[in-house]
Amino acid sequence: MNFASDNAAGIAPEILAAISRANEGAALAYGRDPWTRRVEERFAELFAREAAVFLVPTGTAANALALAHLAPPWGAVLCHAEAHIATDECGAPEFYGGGLKLVGLAGEAGKIVPDALQRALDAGQWGGPHHVSPTVLSLSQATEAGTIYRPDEIRELADSFGATKGGALAAEAVLFFDRARGANMPERRKRGGHLLSKHRFLAAQIEAYLADDLWLKLARHANAMADRLAAGLAAAGFVPVWPVEANEVFVALPVRADERLSSAGAIYYPWATDSLPHGVALKGDETLVRLVTSFATNVDEVDRFVAIVSAS
Amino acid sequence: MNFASDNAAGIAPEILAAISRANEGAALAYGRDPWTRRVEERFAELFAREAAVFLVPTGTAANALALAHLAPPWGAVLCHAEAHIATDECGAPEFYGGGLKLVGLAGEAGKIVPDALQRALDAGQWGGPHHVSPTVLSLSQATEAGTIYRPDEIRELADSFGATKGGALAAEAVLFFDRARGANMPERRKRGGHLLSKHRFLAAQIEAYLADDLWLKLARHANAMADRLAAGLAAAGFVPVWPVEANEVFVALPVRADERLSSAGAIYYPWATDSLPHGVALKGDETLVRLVTSFATNVDEVDRFVAIVSAS
Amino acid sequence: MNFASDNAAGIAPEILAAISRANEGAALAYGRDPWTRRVEERFAELFAREAAVFLVPTGTAANALALAHLAPPWGAVLCHAEAHIATDECGAPEFYGGGLKLVGLAGEAGKIVPDALQRALDAGQWGGPHHVSPTVLSLSQATEAGTIYRPDEIRELADSFGATKGGALAAEAVLFFDRARGANMPERRKRGGHLLSKHRFLAAQIEAYLADDLWLKLARHANAMADRLAAGLAAAGFVPVWPVEANEVFVALPVRADERLSSAGAIYYPWATDSLPHGVALKGDETLVRLVTSFATNVDEVDRFVAIVSAS
Amino acid sequence: MNFASDNAAGIAPEILAAISRANEGAALAYGRDPWTRRVEERFAELFAREAAVFLVPTGTAANALALAHLAPPWGAVLCHAEAHIATDECGAPEFYGGGLKLVGLAGEAGKIVPDALQRALDAGQWGGPHHVSPTVLSLSQATEAGTIYRPDEIRELADSFGATKGGALAAEAVLFFDRARGANMPERRKRGGHLLSKHRFLAAQIEAYLADDLWLKLARHANAMADRLAAGLAAAGFVPVWPVEANEVFVALPVRADERLSSAGAIYYPWATDSLPHGVALKGDETLVRLVTSFATNVDEVDRFVAIVSAS
Repeated sequence: MNFASDNAAGIAPEILAAISRANEGAALAYGRDPWTRRVEERFAELFAREAAVFLVPTGTAANALALAHLAPPWGAVLCHAEAHIATDECGAPEFYGGGLKLVGLAGEAGKIVPDALQRALDAGQWGGPHHVSPTVLSLSQATEAGTIYRPDEIRELADSFGATKGGALAAEAVLFFDRARGANMPERRKRGGHLLSKHRFLAAQIEAYLADDLWLKLARHANAMADRLAAGLAAAGFVPVWPVEANEVFVALPVRADERLSSAGAIYYPWATDSLPHGVALKGDETLVRLVTSFATNVDEVDRFVAIVSAS
Repeated sequence: MNFASDNAAGIAPEILAAISRANEGAALAYGRDPWTRRVEERFAELFAREAAVFLVPTGTAANALALAHLAPPWGAVLCHAEAHIATDECGAPEFYGGGLKLVGLAGEAGKIVPDALQRALDAGQWGGPHHVSPTVLSLSQATEAGTIYRPDEIRELADSFGATKGGALAAEAVLFFDRARGANMPERRKRGGHLLSKHRFLAAQIEAYLADDLWLKLARHANAMADRLAAGLAAAGFVPVWPVEANEVFVALPVRADERLSSAGAIYYPWATDSLPHGVALKGDETLVRLVTSFATNVDEVDRFVAIVSAS
Repeated sequence: MNFASDNAAGIAPEILAAISRANEGAALAYGRDPWTRRVEERFAELFAREAAVFLVPTGTAANALALAHLAPPWGAVLCHAEAHIATDECGAPEFYGGGLKLVGLAGEAGKIVPDALQRALDAGQWGGPHHVSPTVLSLSQATEAGTIYRPDEIRELADSFGATKGGALAAEAVLFFDRARGANMPERRKRGGHLLSKHRFLAAQIEAYLADDLWLKLARHANAMADRLAAGLAAAGFVPVWPVEANEVFVALPVRADERLSSAGAIYYPWATDSLPHGVALKGDETLVRLVTSFATNVDEVDRFVAIVSAS
Repeated sequence: MNFASDNAAGIAPEILAAISRANEGAALAYGRDPWTRRVEERFAELFAREAAVFLVPTGTAANALALAHLAPPWGAVLCHAEAHIATDECGAPEFYGGGLKLVGLAGEAGKIVPDALQRALDAGQWGGPHHVSPTVLSLSQATEAGTIYRPDEIRELADSFGATKGGALAAEAVLFFDRARGANMPERRKRGGHLLSKHRFLAAQIEAYLADDLWLKLARHANAMADRLAAGLAAAGFVPVWPVEANEVFVALPVRADERLSSAGAIYYPWATDSLPHGVALKGDETLVRLVTSFATNVDEVDRFVAIVSAS
């Protein structure tokens, strides 16, 4: 019953197999190999447009490199106050960005709403030489609260921000849909130590992840497990505090349930937030916990978890 | 009637005279001159203890150098959300600090209160490798709201913060009361381009500023003018929104008064804040303005300003 | 006949198998897993002392993180003028080091000699506030010229430098033999985006690499192939320009041989250097080339290469 | 007899008077004052073209800000190996430039020659992702050896470099002749702590310096004193090692002369260089010294200095 993080899971069998297959013969280093070329083609197909693609080994690297590339050191990145880039990357965006500034916006369920964005843009003192300039609006799917921005919400936020300023999808691949935007990203990635010499093995993983909709299959399984977990908990009287729209369930548990779960070997983290829905508050004997499912989560461990909570 | 900023005023006559006097004969460059030595002695007398003293040409340089020296790149500087370092220096602390993070705390009248500090320390996720570490508590006298921390308030905040971690007075001089803390500050200042070659002229200004309590005399005059302004406005029904404890008055003026003042040539800035006292709010036809007095402000311009407001 | 780079080779079978074996069950993320603990133990055994161990995905990351950790921004890293950190990492050490300075020293066969080091230390202007301070002496095994520092040479250079200032072995693992030196390296690694979430797979690779002397076996094979290549070329009248002490052979080839090799599909790079032995110079129709062998190089391709050169 | 540095001299009387005159009444802060506007106009007249002008308090600030503005972090600044930016600014260009790289070129008398530049461009490995890109060619007038690039020499170097890439004159004023190049320099200056609040006093100094050709008058006097010193030393058998083309004289003095000068209170620095003319070498009992004259140097101290050397 490991619901601590999807990082606790291992490698999907299809991806491991792809690594093995890629290990045949020599290949040019640093991304000049066929696997990398195929990943670029595959992304172009997926988004139905050309893109400059940069693969990197971690999500933090992808986030920090992308933000530093889009914003100058005197730029501000507007994000949710509890966004991962703001709270869990030990200042990586500021480091890569030469001291840029993250400006956190409040919002329920981990989501920025257009009004809050507009207020920040109106009220803030922006622009040189004394003030930083709002340059990037950072939205992540899913949010830290396991919720999702819908296309129309993204469109409205982008309008509030004044322009759809390009856009980077970061997840160990950084994509620039305007290819010219990718200029000098190779140097930036190299200087960050994120250009892998045996790059084909990075590419082979992404290639396998994109092939035959594997990414969709894995994500759907994780999401289905989260839905099952949420439904089970709700049936036992523990309704998640935010809509479950991805692979995370946030729920307030009584201390007793928490203790029983720990005794039974369940692993997960408590969660602190200022982003609860208006009117919702924890009771004195409750802890808010985050439960993360992954491609490797199985029905059995979900059901055991629910059973223990129900019995508490 | 220039109440825009104390930067609008010129040089105090005593300080200008000191610059002229210092201009006799040759002197060693880069701070190895008698004026600099005397300034160090004078500060030691003033604080009744030895200190490492570093003179720099701007307040932003002093702030940014001091913060970068005290906090590592993965450190957090806790400050009021509307502190000058957070809002008006275009990211200088982040630049000098290699991407450190400023964490803004709310609080009325520009002041951090111990409870808010404690809540931030308790609630925040702090510490490596994923999170930045709270390293510096930054308090400025006066605050951006023209208010003052009293010694017991500072003591209480320092206790909340866990330790009195040294302390830097920044105002174009950076002081380390623990001299060992000043190690490598010479390199840092040089790399920032803030080691003046003809350093004696910087030192001569500070020397004059400290001599015969000139700094007190100048500050008392500015503060007295602010008090007179506040009293006059209050008598006319316009009570400042925050206590006037230094050389700044913040007051809500009706649009009509604002227009008359502008026509009469008065200069000052509007002010945006989330730091108003609980229960205080601006009316629809009011603008919050900041009025700054200086050593050069005179009774006449204060009284004319009050007269125009009273007549509105 | 791929002698372009050892990065062109794939994954050793033992290491690939280790990745597969590690993919069983869940494990805590970010290095709190048994594989990582075992790697730390294994390094301690290997060096017969405790060490702080940090695994990272690339050599550039290891180099840049280690140098930034050992030298302050106003420090100088003394290295060979043609060292990899100085010429092939696009400024990664300067980026991670907040603008530190690499100072290149000349020397034959890619090696710094004590006299040159001493001259640089004596002649240079060092020390604050105007000058950077010599903080790190960077030696890499093997050098860019495929040569090796012997223990007594390292000792003599370290003596020249004034002290054995700790020491970092960088190869995708950064080791601090003085564990206290490793403080804050976790934050630094995280901020660089080099803390892998599924860290066990990084650790499993290093574990396999260290197990049963696999690293020695692989290195010995690569070195033996280089020796065979060097001997074959020498017998054909093409003596390598530098001693072959690792897995690289540098040799001057006539244009005709170069063309025949290319036609036959051999892959390798030309090489520019100021580090040739005293008295050695290229002839007009010669190109200096670098030939790199790896664990995957086989006798057959070495012998074919030599045969083509011999027949030219 | 202070020949240590022109920084040892004080303020020219005309400039001091300008400071006093500027101290009348209030003025807008941060450069929005009439003095600053007039300086911009005066520079435009002087160069017969519009320019973006940025005043800063130190030469190091001017150098570092300009280089950081022209070169990206992965750029290389090519300069003479003994240039001031490379040897005497404690890494300020690297700090401001986010870790850019200075590449030093050899050359007699402190000057880069076109051949050496071309060789560096041809031989070096340049360009992303692995190598930095040559972005700026930095020439300073006068050089660290007190020599001057003539217009045709500059033209030839600029041609070697591939393009006249704009050009920055740094001397406490940074000028961009292509005004668009100055975009975002205000933010950069602010973040560096180099935007003076009472900017009029900086502008007033530069204004006075440019008025009535004061800068020419002061420079001509300093240069004439250097010429007189050089002629006197040459007549006594001590010919300067490099042409005296500005306000610096470099000469090899016997130990005995050095001792007599010190006893008589003369102040100057010894000088280490690899930039002596071909065939010139110091004798065992000689020290190379640098003698700097300034607007404040007088005939009397020059003649006394020469007399002591002649009598040695």
